[in-house]
Amino acid sequence: MKTGEFERIIQYFAPLASEFPGAFGLTDDAAVLSVAPGYEFAVTTDTVVEGVHFVGDEPPAQIAAKMLRVNLSDLAAMGARPVAYTLNIALRRDVDDAWLKGFCAGLRADQDAFGVHLMGGDSVATNGPVVLTVTAFGETPSGKALRRNGAVPGDRIYVSGTIGDAALGLRVVQGKLVGLEDAAAAGLALRYHLPEPRLTLGRELINVASAAADISDGLVADLGHITDASGVGAVLNWEDVPISVAARATATLVDNLPEVILTGGDDYELVFTAPVDVAPKLSVLAKRLNLDLCEVGVIEANNGVRVIDVNGREIVLQEKGYVHC
Amino acid sequence: MKTGEFERIIQYFAPLASEFPGAFGLTDDAAVLSVAPGYEFAVTTDTVVEGVHFVGDEPPAQIAAKMLRVNLSDLAAMGARPVAYTLNIALRRDVDDAWLKGFCAGLRADQDAFGVHLMGGDSVATNGPVVLTVTAFGETPSGKALRRNGAVPGDRIYVSGTIGDAALGLRVVQGKLVGLEDAAAAGLALRYHLPEPRLTLGRELINVASAAADISDGLVADLGHITDASGVGAVLNWEDVPISVAARATATLVDNLPEVILTGGDDYELVFTAPVDVAPKLSVLAKRLNLDLCEVGVIEANNGVRVIDVNGREIVLQEKGYVHC
Repeated sequence: MKTGEFERIIQYFAPLASEFPGAFGLTDDAAVLSVAPGYEFAVTTDTVVEGVHFVGDEPPAQIAAKMLRVNLSDLAAMGARPVAYTLNIALRRDVDDAWLKGFCAGLRADQDAFGVHLMGGDSVATNGPVVLTVTAFGETPSGKALRRNGAVPGDRIYVSGTIGDAALGLRVVQGKLVGLEDAAAAGLALRYHLPEPRLTLGRELINVASAAADISDGLVADLGHITDASGVGAVLNWEDVPISVAARATATLVDNLPEVILTGGDDYELVFTAPVDVAPKLSVLAKRLNLDLCEVGVIEANNGVRVIDVNGREIVLQEKGYVHC
Repeated sequence: MKTGEFERIIQYFAPLASEFPGAFGLTDDAAVLSVAPGYEFAVTTDTVVEGVHFVGDEPPAQIAAKMLRVNLSDLAAMGARPVAYTLNIALRRDVDDAWLKGFCAGLRADQDAFGVHLMGGDSVATNGPVVLTVTAFGETPSGKALRRNGAVPGDRIYVSGTIGDAALGLRVVQGKLVGLEDAAAAGLALRYHLPEPRLTLGRELINVASAAADISDGLVADLGHITDASGVGAVLNWEDVPISVAARATATLVDNLPEVILTGGDDYELVFTAPVDVAPKLSVLAKRLNLDLCEVGVIEANNGVRVIDVNGREIVLQEKGYVHC
């Protein structure tokens, strides 16, 4: 069964907008979005395409959650508190109501988890693959959003959580990484399918971090975005990069694990820089958030990101990270 | 020649964002959007799909302009002043730089015409048809945005410009309307390809109109959105609906012209309601804007939109307007 367009909006999407007054029940020409005095909006948007960014046979709730979380992660990287999002869906005509129901259940669960609301959108038919766009809005104190361009030589480089799990999880999902214990394999796959946007951390880093980005393209690539925007360089210490127990267990199963971990995307942890005297504050913050914040390197004056091993020798990477397609 | 993703953003899209400080040159995780005290944002978004909403062989500048203007028209219907937009493009891999160059030239021309700026976006590859999403942001005085839900019985119904030209223009473009003089045919086609968002009118209608919508689905359908949202009905006088000279010339060439004019979409004029005592003010406004504002009917208490002819007989329409797909 396939519901008509208007009924589809009312039945599936209007409930997701019911708690956001400015959405007007999705019945007006536009939504209205207001911000408290002293605040402004961070706005980010991502498009995912069936057959490119997801296979298409994933559970629709999982597709919905990842799509939303990827945008929330961008808001986290700006230190913004998520408020609302718009959703544009181009659906194949054979997508049925069961798929839509699952998709909206995924959105609902994450709306509740992250305090964000559907505010508007568009639903159209396509003769090609499903294409999904989310545009997310978050509040930041005016002029205080975390940027990529504030790193200066001497700043220390930090990452949250563990790095490389999602890239290994993708290999698990693709059947290219076998021989792991089931629990480890499932854990890595989950990191790939269901990123955890570091929203609380991002907000706490306002007035603390000098620059920040989320790790979507890979640690070296996203750190490179910071150094490029800041006009500086960086030295990254491979032995300090936090790696999960599950990822360590893949060492004998994956060729060139350092390369995979340093250049793999989709972790959606934060990489950020901060002056050296902020270290004690970050230590307290890590305990309070129950989230590891590891110092992994230092900002230098020269351009480029260099990775060195425990003996100070440079590790040369074949690839710098995910190339957008 | 096809440029890589990062170079493509820098080369083609960053110049479109250069005048909007919060876009950060499209190099950060999110853009920042701030609003003056006492104002809030109207947010609207539309997705168009190659093969559904456009053929694909149109000049790319025209595709860009129509896509942007359709969103600006939604802002006009809310009485908002356009400020910025985000753009998401899913492109076939064979789309070349010449197409992108033309597409961006169309955006640039309309940015200059309407005072709006690219603020962010996403560019991805697809194996299917091109899918384009624009999300547009406009400022409105807080709590004053034009809505669809304020019409009350006795209010008069107005439309701007002339109605039905775009639906006839679509027939010209499709080769289904032949025998017109070249100038008339070209004029109608232009109305279809290049709508004129009624932004100045929309802003002037704040505190004046009781309800408003833009005519994207057809006059009867969009008036129906107003009556549905307001919980009222409407009588529309067919003989008062303003029709262009070119549209009148099609009377012998088109079956059931009233139906085409009343239910055809894509005009992007405004339909709005206002108390009867506002008529003199609207007359002055029409002269100042050099834009016809015609009274075409009256709001009644009962539900539904009825169309009557010069003798008071109801004109029964086969279709109520464009059904979203």
